[in-house]
Amino acid sequence: MPLIVQKYGGTSVGTPDRIRLVAQRLLETQREGCRVVGVMSAMAGITDDLLKLARDVAAQPSSRELDLLLATGEQASSALVAMAIGDLGGRAISLSGAAAGILTDRAHTRAKIANISPRRIQNLLGDDYIVVVAGFQGQNADGEITTLGRGGSDLSAIALAGALNADACQIFTDVDGVFTCDPRLIRDARKIDEISYDELLEMAGGGAKVMQSRAVEFAKKFSVPFEVRSSFSGASGTVAREETPHMEEVVVRGVSVDRKQAKVTICGVPDKAGIAGQIFGPIAAANLIVDMIVQNVSSGDTTDVSFTIHENDIEHARHILESIRREIGASHINARNQVAKLSVVGIGMRSHAGVAARFFECLGHGGINIELISTSEIKIAVVVAEEDIDEAARLTHESFNLSRLAPQAAVI
Amino acid sequence: MPLIVQKYGGTSVGTPDRIRLVAQRLLETQREGCRVVGVMSAMAGITDDLLKLARDVAAQPSSRELDLLLATGEQASSALVAMAIGDLGGRAISLSGAAAGILTDRAHTRAKIANISPRRIQNLLGDDYIVVVAGFQGQNADGEITTLGRGGSDLSAIALAGALNADACQIFTDVDGVFTCDPRLIRDARKIDEISYDELLEMAGGGAKVMQSRAVEFAKKFSVPFEVRSSFSGASGTVAREETPHMEEVVVRGVSVDRKQAKVTICGVPDKAGIAGQIFGPIAAANLIVDMIVQNVSSGDTTDVSFTIHENDIEHARHILESIRREIGASHINARNQVAKLSVVGIGMRSHAGVAARFFECLGHGGINIELISTSEIKIAVVVAEEDIDEAARLTHESFNLSRLAPQAAVI
Repeated sequence: MPLIVQKYGGTSVGTPDRIRLVAQRLLETQREGCRVVGVMSAMAGITDDLLKLARDVAAQPSSRELDLLLATGEQASSALVAMAIGDLGGRAISLSGAAAGILTDRAHTRAKIANISPRRIQNLLGDDYIVVVAGFQGQNADGEITTLGRGGSDLSAIALAGALNADACQIFTDVDGVFTCDPRLIRDARKIDEISYDELLEMAGGGAKVMQSRAVEFAKKFSVPFEVRSSFSGASGTVAREETPHMEEVVVRGVSVDRKQAKVTICGVPDKAGIAGQIFGPIAAANLIVDMIVQNVSSGDTTDVSFTIHENDIEHARHILESIRREIGASHINARNQVAKLSVVGIGMRSHAGVAARFFECLGHGGINIELISTSEIKIAVVVAEEDIDEAARLTHESFNLSRLAPQAAVI
Repeated sequence: MPLIVQKYGGTSVGTPDRIRLVAQRLLETQREGCRVVGVMSAMAGITDDLLKLARDVAAQPSSRELDLLLATGEQASSALVAMAIGDLGGRAISLSGAAAGILTDRAHTRAKIANISPRRIQNLLGDDYIVVVAGFQGQNADGEITTLGRGGSDLSAIALAGALNADACQIFTDVDGVFTCDPRLIRDARKIDEISYDELLEMAGGGAKVMQSRAVEFAKKFSVPFEVRSSFSGASGTVAREETPHMEEVVVRGVSVDRKQAKVTICGVPDKAGIAGQIFGPIAAANLIVDMIVQNVSSGDTTDVSFTIHENDIEHARHILESIRREIGASHINARNQVAKLSVVGIGMRSHAGVAARFFECLGHGGINIELISTSEIKIAVVVAEEDIDEAARLTHESFNLSRLAPQAAVI
């Protein structure tokens, strides 16, 4: 009998009515002849409410206690879904992450899954139970409850699918799948039927908020294919899997936009060995996450170093960099947050020349100035002024023929 | 170093500010040189919210899942209190009921405590932690989370105080202690400094909503003295303990009022053996809790049987009794819910004649008609019309000199 893992996000279990719909879908899947494991997020808004409470009672909440607090959100939604299944005439049982056998390391609030002991779930499935597991959580070797970080329920689902050797893993969410671009931005953005793990990672890193990156990395590492699909429609979604030769026929899979970027440039940096370490060491020590880093060719004996960070971190970064600037003898610092990042992603571009040229040309024709460029094997990202980003995304999406109206692959 | 258990109710941890106050009080108690265990209820309103959610997703929620759901309320408040203690510079750790070693039977939603393994708490206390335990819950021998029924956090605290051989157990609540009568009703009601377990049980059974009866019974069984006091003032409260000869000097400890009563009379019941069983068997089978039962002396070959139940159960009872009436050949049934119960309680009345007489006389002088009378060794209860109950309580309170202005014992 096939085994299927279905994960439901916070909006999918956000109200009693929706919880009953989730219960119904799990039950239908079982009645179609599957063994079924459900993985639940907390009801929409609950995690934020709990975090707010924590911050209201403590400036620096203990991470152990934070995990105990936050884990209650998924425990509650799982119990509610199990109740609803029972009420619909099914047999269900809810398990906390710990009870489901999810063992993690000791890093509270951002634990990594160390191991899964699927025995209990397997026994319950053998007894025809629908097993409803609280996502986002596990326990460490001391039996302490841990959580897996924001969006960790995706990771729970994929890890369980891997450990149970599931035949399918479906991530139900409030969107229909992964799109060639954010459909709120590009009206004729097209749902992608199939995407490689790497492409999905680059899309997510580029701002597409479909899945937690760690979950995708885990899926890639353990070759767990999964489908991202809507819990509100019956339509099929986007399947993420290891890449196939077939996938490379499409050069550009999608375009993603990240508006939350800020750009920082340190100008007049002495062009000598070890400088980059002197700059980025203290930035990393302050836990600021740097996205793109670009160093221009030096002009004379100085160079400019630019990088992007989250816009919320701009003041913090400016503060740290001011002392670095004095130390290394750079001339000045420019920092501004009215910028956005546009990325084009596709494993096909590895074997196709000319993607970058077409990308830059289309922006140039649109009169859009490129402030930074950074490339990887399967992604090209540029930073432009925030006011230009919508037009830039539209032009790029059109240029690579990604729209609903022209589903064929771009030919370069 | 003395060990103290402090239990805080839902209103005491109802807001972030109050949670910080609770944290502060626990910390102060530790700094005064005590080892400290805190037992927390869920934040005010949370348990009701969770119950409503459960009823919204399932007509008959599974009791196992209900326990998992409800237990999250106390887990969250305990984690929050532990965080707040940490934020105030203390060392604290929160434990679920299961983690605290509270073992129960398998009766989900109304589990009884079977055993407590206090090792982990003792170790943590030895390491100078303030241990914050989620009240109301434990786990059964299968490791499944169970709950102890409404108000079960009181029971958790008293059971832990017993198992840890604590030097004191303080039940912090939103009232200043146990009063000679409800202070909202009798403005000069007096706080009782010391009360026996039995008196407290009778007061609670009479309508005084200070403590869960099962918690008091447990305290009595294992001789665990405890103090009921306010979490909003520093004043000492009411100490409940085994009775002392000294306690008997006060004849009437207090007066309690229960407005939620309904009175049912089955008239013209054939006066023969086994009739009471035929009446109350089906009532008990329907899980209706009967409070007072009074059977008058028979007039001829029939008699009347009266009893009181919770007013919410009146239609249910009427339905059951109608078929019983036909079966046993009784003439008719009277049921009405505009009645209330007034009880006077005191272990001193065992050795003092005349309490009943004075009680009835004072009501008679006030023109208040007594509908039912029932007595135990330390309590006399009457049912009167609901419209008379305030005046009846006032007259009785005055008659036994229970007011703040006359704190001396009544002399009969």
